[in-house]
Amino acid sequence: MQKPRTLFVSLFMAGALALSTAATADEIDRQKLQEQAQSLFAPLPEKVDNPDNPLSDVKVELGKMLFYDPRLSESGFISCNSCHNLATYGVDNLPTSLGHRWALGPRNSPTVLNAALHSVQFWDGRAADVEEQAQGPILNPIEMAIPDGDAAVERIASMPEYVELFEQAFPDEPESLSYDNVANAIGAFERTLMTPDRFDEFLKGDADALSDNELAGLQVFLNQGCVACHAGPALGGQMMARFGMVESYWEATRDFIAIDQPTMPMDVGRFAVTQDAGDLYVFKAPSLRNITRTYPYFHDGSVWDLRDATQIMARVQLGSEINEDDMDRLMDFYQTLEGEIPADALKLPILPSSRVDTPRPSHE
Amino acid sequence: MQKPRTLFVSLFMAGALALSTAATADEIDRQKLQEQAQSLFAPLPEKVDNPDNPLSDVKVELGKMLFYDPRLSESGFISCNSCHNLATYGVDNLPTSLGHRWALGPRNSPTVLNAALHSVQFWDGRAADVEEQAQGPILNPIEMAIPDGDAAVERIASMPEYVELFEQAFPDEPESLSYDNVANAIGAFERTLMTPDRFDEFLKGDADALSDNELAGLQVFLNQGCVACHAGPALGGQMMARFGMVESYWEATRDFIAIDQPTMPMDVGRFAVTQDAGDLYVFKAPSLRNITRTYPYFHDGSVWDLRDATQIMARVQLGSEINEDDMDRLMDFYQTLEGEIPADALKLPILPSSRVDTPRPSHE
Repeated sequence: MQKPRTLFVSLFMAGALALSTAATADEIDRQKLQEQAQSLFAPLPEKVDNPDNPLSDVKVELGKMLFYDPRLSESGFISCNSCHNLATYGVDNLPTSLGHRWALGPRNSPTVLNAALHSVQFWDGRAADVEEQAQGPILNPIEMAIPDGDAAVERIASMPEYVELFEQAFPDEPESLSYDNVANAIGAFERTLMTPDRFDEFLKGDADALSDNELAGLQVFLNQGCVACHAGPALGGQMMARFGMVESYWEATRDFIAIDQPTMPMDVGRFAVTQDAGDLYVFKAPSLRNITRTYPYFHDGSVWDLRDATQIMARVQLGSEINEDDMDRLMDFYQTLEGEIPADALKLPILPSSRVDTPRPSHE
Repeated sequence: MQKPRTLFVSLFMAGALALSTAATADEIDRQKLQEQAQSLFAPLPEKVDNPDNPLSDVKVELGKMLFYDPRLSESGFISCNSCHNLATYGVDNLPTSLGHRWALGPRNSPTVLNAALHSVQFWDGRAADVEEQAQGPILNPIEMAIPDGDAAVERIASMPEYVELFEQAFPDEPESLSYDNVANAIGAFERTLMTPDRFDEFLKGDADALSDNELAGLQVFLNQGCVACHAGPALGGQMMARFGMVESYWEATRDFIAIDQPTMPMDVGRFAVTQDAGDLYVFKAPSLRNITRTYPYFHDGSVWDLRDATQIMARVQLGSEINEDDMDRLMDFYQTLEGEIPADALKLPILPSSRVDTPRPSHE
């Protein structure tokens, strides 16, 4: 797995230099701002290719079926879509997710939308891509809790419709139905979950796609230095960064708003993966696409209000404070990042019928 | 609520008279069998009207959104679709459902498909229609666990998109957003969940819609007396009947197959509602539409194999035993009852965004 970049210095500098406030509508040079945005961001692609897992219609459809199939959990009650609900923009809108036996997960479930664009997966970047990521929750004892990959494959192999689809989706492989390919199919589906929005129209050349207020919000976003971590096609997802550059996010957040999770320990972030002191409190900078919909915020889902989350980020990452007018404009800008989920992904698949010899679900 | 009919005598007679076995293909008089079937069953309607809750496009769409919305549960994790998953024919394919705090429900979740045709709702018939039924699980502490109807309304009222839809769906009411109307909207959606199948084609006049084997299965179904309880457009759902007419279903089932729920108490059925001795072990005869998909079977979900379930029914309801050939044909016939779920119902709706003042979910 490629080591994620941890950009501290440039981030801090961007923040320290950010002194401007929102420009008024008159002052905004649409074309100049558009060119600047085009150099920092990029329109969402239609899909994200992976040479190691080439997309095909049948593979994506199979991945969709698996994504919606609760039989990928030991209980038969939890599917990928339970925590990455496409009806709510690929998240469950819970601080942290519920799993097998009502276990509470330690981190907020990030959206699957546009996630294939991220340089690494999970908050701590411990998976290289969506295919590797998809292997995790199915076997995690506090998530979907299937005992092991073989058990997952055994369930699927009991259903001839699935076996046939795996053969079609992975035609050149001696063993088309394997746990790796379960995850490859789900990953392929995720690679199609792009959500084009009005900001894309702006980036693609329509200078009038954003209103004056939204443009002013973009200007604040650039001036404040948010773009240091939230750039690229997903406005984020491209780097690991210490959460709490200027002051402890933990203390600042709990000082700033009342948090109802007093007993949750402070999360050491990527340090838990690498045991490298430089990775303490380091998390992936999340994508801001659909950010209005993916509340509550941060890796611990502790903040529900996007204004609060933005203010906390300014304070602990950039050492600044955003005034109310600028905050209003940022909220206007965020609205342009609310995209359209592909219609095919929202069509609930009819799942294959279990057979008499399909291993039975267990809630124990 | 209308008192459900409990037809004991006719049921028993039908069983006692059922001595025939499957006819061979040669012997089947397609036209005669078709006429007989047309007199006992009926094609599914496109939808089921309710004068007290007239259908409209906006009401059905609103009901669909509520059906898929996990915010109708206290945890924010469980929606109607969690236990009545339309990707698996309106059921969760679990013996009994999981609910709030991983509580295990006492009875198998019946399918919502074609349920609006039933004369009463719930296994014990305690609700008159789908509208009354829909009020139950949302507030049931071991299901969705919202404290009360006001709390459910408070959540929904915090989201302007929902408020607007309620006004459109219930335009002539002084209080369009009420708990009754939450259930009315969900009920309206359910009234559209009809699943036309090949048996409908046969009933509508296409005598060749069923194969010889499937027709032979229909003949067994009639000859054995199954039709005594499983008649009408839904092949069931029209009457309450004692489960265990000839012998105790409890003992027979546990004698017949290994049951992995040794500690589950025998369910007294409708007796729990009426305290009428005649209602002991009385349950609603379920619909057989999509019966191949709505495993595991019976009110306690204790039987996974449709052959076993059918044999047990023959034994404890009809005092007969179905031979292997007849059973094969019955399975062929059941296959014709696998219908098509309306495409609109399978389109996952994009749910309104919670607001900062929307009451927060709690898994406690």
